[in-house]
Amino acid sequence: MKSYYLTKAEENLPKLIKTIIAPKIDAVVLDNRDTFTIDLGNHYVGYFFFKMWFLSTYIDAPVRMNVRFFETERELNDDYDDYKGELCKSWLQEEIINVDFPGKYKMPRRYATRFIKITVLNTPQKVVLSDFGFESQTSADLRSLKPCQTCDNELAKIDKIAVNTLKNCMQRVFEDGPKRDRRLWIGDLRLEALANYYTFENISLVKRCLYLFAAAERNEYGILPGYVYENPIYCSGNWFLIDYSLMFVCTLCDLYSHTGDAKIFHDLYPIAKSILDVLDETKDDEGLVTTRSGDVFIDWCKGLIKNTALEGIYLYTLDRWCEVLESIGNEDDATLYRARLEQGRAASRKYLYDENNGAFINKRDKYQNSVHTATWMILGGVVKGEEAKRILKEVISSPDSVKPFTPYMHHYTVDALIKAGLMQEAEKYIRNIWGGMVKMGADTFFEVYVPSDPEFSPYGDRKVNSMCHAWSCTATYFIRKYGFGTVPHNTTSD
Amino acid sequence: MKSYYLTKAEENLPKLIKTIIAPKIDAVVLDNRDTFTIDLGNHYVGYFFFKMWFLSTYIDAPVRMNVRFFETERELNDDYDDYKGELCKSWLQEEIINVDFPGKYKMPRRYATRFIKITVLNTPQKVVLSDFGFESQTSADLRSLKPCQTCDNELAKIDKIAVNTLKNCMQRVFEDGPKRDRRLWIGDLRLEALANYYTFENISLVKRCLYLFAAAERNEYGILPGYVYENPIYCSGNWFLIDYSLMFVCTLCDLYSHTGDAKIFHDLYPIAKSILDVLDETKDDEGLVTTRSGDVFIDWCKGLIKNTALEGIYLYTLDRWCEVLESIGNEDDATLYRARLEQGRAASRKYLYDENNGAFINKRDKYQNSVHTATWMILGGVVKGEEAKRILKEVISSPDSVKPFTPYMHHYTVDALIKAGLMQEAEKYIRNIWGGMVKMGADTFFEVYVPSDPEFSPYGDRKVNSMCHAWSCTATYFIRKYGFGTVPHNTTSD
Repeated sequence: MKSYYLTKAEENLPKLIKTIIAPKIDAVVLDNRDTFTIDLGNHYVGYFFFKMWFLSTYIDAPVRMNVRFFETERELNDDYDDYKGELCKSWLQEEIINVDFPGKYKMPRRYATRFIKITVLNTPQKVVLSDFGFESQTSADLRSLKPCQTCDNELAKIDKIAVNTLKNCMQRVFEDGPKRDRRLWIGDLRLEALANYYTFENISLVKRCLYLFAAAERNEYGILPGYVYENPIYCSGNWFLIDYSLMFVCTLCDLYSHTGDAKIFHDLYPIAKSILDVLDETKDDEGLVTTRSGDVFIDWCKGLIKNTALEGIYLYTLDRWCEVLESIGNEDDATLYRARLEQGRAASRKYLYDENNGAFINKRDKYQNSVHTATWMILGGVVKGEEAKRILKEVISSPDSVKPFTPYMHHYTVDALIKAGLMQEAEKYIRNIWGGMVKMGADTFFEVYVPSDPEFSPYGDRKVNSMCHAWSCTATYFIRKYGFGTVPHNTTSD
Repeated sequence: MKSYYLTKAEENLPKLIKTIIAPKIDAVVLDNRDTFTIDLGNHYVGYFFFKMWFLSTYIDAPVRMNVRFFETERELNDDYDDYKGELCKSWLQEEIINVDFPGKYKMPRRYATRFIKITVLNTPQKVVLSDFGFESQTSADLRSLKPCQTCDNELAKIDKIAVNTLKNCMQRVFEDGPKRDRRLWIGDLRLEALANYYTFENISLVKRCLYLFAAAERNEYGILPGYVYENPIYCSGNWFLIDYSLMFVCTLCDLYSHTGDAKIFHDLYPIAKSILDVLDETKDDEGLVTTRSGDVFIDWCKGLIKNTALEGIYLYTLDRWCEVLESIGNEDDATLYRARLEQGRAASRKYLYDENNGAFINKRDKYQNSVHTATWMILGGVVKGEEAKRILKEVISSPDSVKPFTPYMHHYTVDALIKAGLMQEAEKYIRNIWGGMVKMGADTFFEVYVPSDPEFSPYGDRKVNSMCHAWSCTATYFIRKYGFGTVPHNTTSD
């Protein structure tokens, strides 16, 4: 029997919307070793099909072809034989197919792709390929997409690509990446849900995903796994992440703030509460959260020291939580958690702030000046006003500070800039990061983007990077929520 | 609009009978580079499926596997990389599959196989494969299989394997080989139809195949293509074979003899007649048929000289034709073709028989003593009685004569032995050829069988040979029709 949570998740299973993409491409005649590349004109997620036919005589044998799917043009000539990544090579989107009969051939697996490269391996004779098409699939309904108000061309383009990224990640769940890992991660979910409120507003899908995490097996402390699988069977992940568990609480709070849906908030309240309580129980003597209860993600940065950022995330989550508790009139709990928030802010100020250098440190670790630490301390409300502005501007512009590697982390840095009142800097940051990807020809935003190292991969090989990644879609959230490119902002540091 | 012939062919489209084969095999745990072989216990044609599952944690990435299908055990260690055959390599039954989800996985293509070898290419972790099964498919209904009366163990085994061969070739049409070429050839059809009358007696399928050839585009002389395709669209072959066109006539005559179905005989009478007339019109000055109107197959023997064998096939066909014409009371035509038959026999005797050596020669070619020539001259009624017995026994036992390479040709040699009254020799021949394949572990009879050269392939590489081939199924026809192994035969040469 299904659990209550899984039953609720199933009630909210979206209908997938299928659209046929038919690129205007002439028929091609191919012989052994010939290669042909199809450009769909945009990034889509779905199923590739084509027609195989013969010239004068019927095809005498099956036709064996290699078919590769690429999300971006720069990947087109990648050599798969020298793949050296840590992730399983099977993530590279490649098939060897044998087509037995002339006629329409639809490949059975789903791909995330714009470019499709066909190489004929074995054919008894020249064959004709034509009628190329792609059945794209998403649970994002374009008819419900809200208009974007920006008058700025670059921002409008960024918004469009961000919406495309979100659309292609919206499937049976908010996937992290439709090429890889094709599953539901909390960190991605939170950002997708935020972008979704300002674009497709598919509330049901957010609820489905929260219920799916509610059904997960937590670790002995009560920390959630970072991800779950739900197709064809439900299965929890086994990597337990403290910061992602806090993001589950934030996602629930966001949903309540956006919809006022008391039912799901009530359903998931005990889980959210227990996560916050675990953090409280595992504090150290100075009243700062520890990593005793699980792992911490923060960002794909090598050598990043994370405890201060985690403290910031905890405080940020408490803040969101108290806000909702107060709005629903749960005064007792609000008071309890508000007290913890203030205690945590004070402890952070006391133990994590280096007054002499005017920057945050990482407790019990060597000093490391990172954008991550500053971002989360500001979002956690440890510093405010001019002090926050100064710290953030300095750490971002410093040549020595550790910078974010993923648009996931870039999102929170933009959020911190906005919270610090640095609206122009936030807009500039968006143009720099998301605009930088646009300049690289993006149809969707990438899993990792390091302006100084476009070949960077957290997995040891760029070929396995996901080039349409959920956590990179929030440029649309900022542009739409804060009206970038529509009216001049008064709150600026200049 | 479909032609009349294709409409009739479609009316006779068989229902495919599907049966699940579930070998008793324990689950296996496989990691990268692991290989596992499944033995279905017999040769089948159809679709392979299995279940993939995980040990403790859900499978983190698609699992890429190489899956190869082998008809016989001796092929299991064949190296596909060194394939050097003339036929397209895509006939080798091999797939690279990517399994995305745990659960049942059914491969979409049809294979002819007993052994299935799985090699894991890329997996993120150990996976469990289990619940192996095979959905076999045939249009032969085992419930309608007539019993075999032989009391001889070896012949009973040969019969069983021959029936299995026929069963696995009976699909939407009488295929030549379910591994390769998977299409309808006239030469195979004729032998399958004969075996079918004594086993499954699927009359409708014979009719369907004859109508499919009736719909074919003939060459400028009126000769039929050796084969046609019918799925997913109808398409004639483009190799026009005189001997196979004559076999179309024989198949029609056999059907009438067996069923008395005047309708189809009437429908196809003009085509059969025109084929015989083409042969008559292209005779040379000595009144012998020529190869002016098309190619000739006879057998897969290198260097075989074919004109005398073709003459024999022509006379054999005329004989069958006249027999049917007489039985339906078409006296005028019967008289006409009977006269041609007698003229041809006289010309053969005069120009193709070497009285001094007591053997048949090949006109205008250098002398070549072949079993093929003797076989067809006897089946064509050019020599009879003791003379026929002597010629056939000598050519079969001679160390220098050209011997048949295919069970297709072996069939007609057995038929000639029987016609010459050499029943014990016929039985011995069957035990030698079909029994020889049994000793090699056959579950079905092979496309080619050369006792002295088991590695022989007409295509330059044994790996592409078909090991379940329609034209090799007629041992069952002989055993059942002539009661081999049931009663002693009086007509013997000893």
